[in-house]
Amino acid sequence: MNQPEIYQAGLREVEFGARVKIVEPCNLYGCKIGDDCFVGPFTEIQKDVRIGARTRVQSHAFICELSTIGDDCFVGHGVMFINDTFSTGGPARGRKELWRETVIGNRVSIGSNATIMPVNIVDDVVIGAGSVVTKDITTPGTYAGNPARRLLARG
Amino acid sequence: MNQPEIYQAGLREVEFGARVKIVEPCNLYGCKIGDDCFVGPFTEIQKDVRIGARTRVQSHAFICELSTIGDDCFVGHGVMFINDTFSTGGPARGRKELWRETVIGNRVSIGSNATIMPVNIVDDVVIGAGSVVTKDITTPGTYAGNPARRLLARG
Amino acid sequence: MNQPEIYQAGLREVEFGARVKIVEPCNLYGCKIGDDCFVGPFTEIQKDVRIGARTRVQSHAFICELSTIGDDCFVGHGVMFINDTFSTGGPARGRKELWRETVIGNRVSIGSNATIMPVNIVDDVVIGAGSVVTKDITTPGTYAGNPARRLLARG
Repeated sequence: MNQPEIYQAGLREVEFGARVKIVEPCNLYGCKIGDDCFVGPFTEIQKDVRIGARTRVQSHAFICELSTIGDDCFVGHGVMFINDTFSTGGPARGRKELWRETVIGNRVSIGSNATIMPVNIVDDVVIGAGSVVTKDITTPGTYAGNPARRLLARG
Repeated sequence: MNQPEIYQAGLREVEFGARVKIVEPCNLYGCKIGDDCFVGPFTEIQKDVRIGARTRVQSHAFICELSTIGDDCFVGHGVMFINDTFSTGGPARGRKELWRETVIGNRVSIGSNATIMPVNIVDDVVIGAGSVVTKDITTPGTYAGNPARRLLARG
Repeated sequence: MNQPEIYQAGLREVEFGARVKIVEPCNLYGCKIGDDCFVGPFTEIQKDVRIGARTRVQSHAFICELSTIGDDCFVGHGVMFINDTFSTGGPARGRKELWRETVIGNRVSIGSNATIMPVNIVDDVVIGAGSVVTKDITTPGTYAGNPARRLLARG
C-alpha cells in the first residue's frame, strides 16, 4: 500500500509588515505581506508574491507566484490568480519560463469569485464579482463580465 | 521581525438547531443554523446569518453578514455571497451602512461556483452553476449566466 | 442547547498510487489517486472518484462522486465538478439515480474557477479559466466562456 507524502498548509518564510491579521488555516509561503493587511481563512499565497499595505485578501482566495498587488486593494472571496496560460496547449509543468506575471496597482478592488489571468491592472479599478479578467486594464474604472469589459457610467 | 496576529477558524457563538452536521475545518461565527442542516468543509458563515431548516451549505461556500437563507435550500460548492457592492468605487472598509442585505426564500437551489450579489430571491428558484446573480429574482424558475437571466422552458 | 455532529476533513480509505503528494487540510475519501499525482490544500475528492497518473488537483478544487479523470490532467484552483443537475427543479437529496457522471480524458487542462457540469470530455482539451462547461466536448481544442464554446484558432 502506497503512502502519500503529506505536507501541511501553514505560514512559512513569510515577511509580515506591522499589524497583519491572519485567519488559519491558510497556506502562505515565501511571500511578503504589507502593513495592516488582513488575510482570511482557506487562502493560499505563493512564493515571491508581494502585497502592499492595507490590502485585504478575503477567504478562499488564491494568489499565485509572479503576482504583485499594491496598497489598499481588496481581493474578494474565492478570487483566483493565474500565471500559467496553458500557452502550449497544457500546463507548463515546471517550465516557469512559460509563466507570466500579474501586476495589480493601488486601490484595486476585485469582486468575489473573479478570475485574474496574468495581466497588468492600473490603479483605481473595480472588478465585478464573478468576472474573468483576460486582458490588461490600463484605464481606471469598473470592469465586469466573462471576459471582463469596461462598464460605462450611466448618465 | 513582525509577527502577525493569528486567529483560528472554528465554531464560535453559533446557535445550532437539532441534528446539524458540520465538517471541519470551517469558520462559523455568530450565526444561526436551522434543524437538520449540513455544512461542508472549507466554508465560512458570518455573523448574524440565519439559515433555515434542512438547508445544505456545501464545501467552499462563503455566506456573508446580512444574509438570510430559508428552509430546504441548497448552497452549492464554492458559492459566494456578497454584501459590499463597492458602491463608492471600492470596499466599504467597515462602513457597514454601505452594505446591503440578501434574502433567499425557501427551496432555492444555488449551483456551484455561483456568485450572489445582495439581492432578494423568492421561493422555488434554481440558480445555475457558475452564474452571477446581480438583480432581485421575483418569479420562481431557473436562472443562469453572467449576469443571470431566466431560462425559458423549452416546449 | 443543541450540539452539532462534527466531522473532520482528512484522508479516509483513499487508494494512493506511488509518489503522490498531498497538502492538508483536504478532504479525500473512498477515491483512487494515480501515481505521481499532486493534490493541493482545501480540496475535496469524494467517494469512488478515480484519478489517473500525473494529474494535478490544485488548491480549492472540488471533485464529486461519479467523476473519472484521466492521466496527465490539470484541475485548476477552485474548479468545481457537479453530479446533480437539479433535474427535478432542486437537489436530488440522496436519490443518487438522478445524479449523472463526468468522464474526463487524458491531457485535459481545466483552468481555475471553471465549473464542470456532468459531461464527457475527450483527450487533449483545454478549458479556459472561469468557464462553465455544460455540454459534452467531443473534439480536442480550447473551450472557454459561460457556457463554454470552442475557441477557433486565429490565423
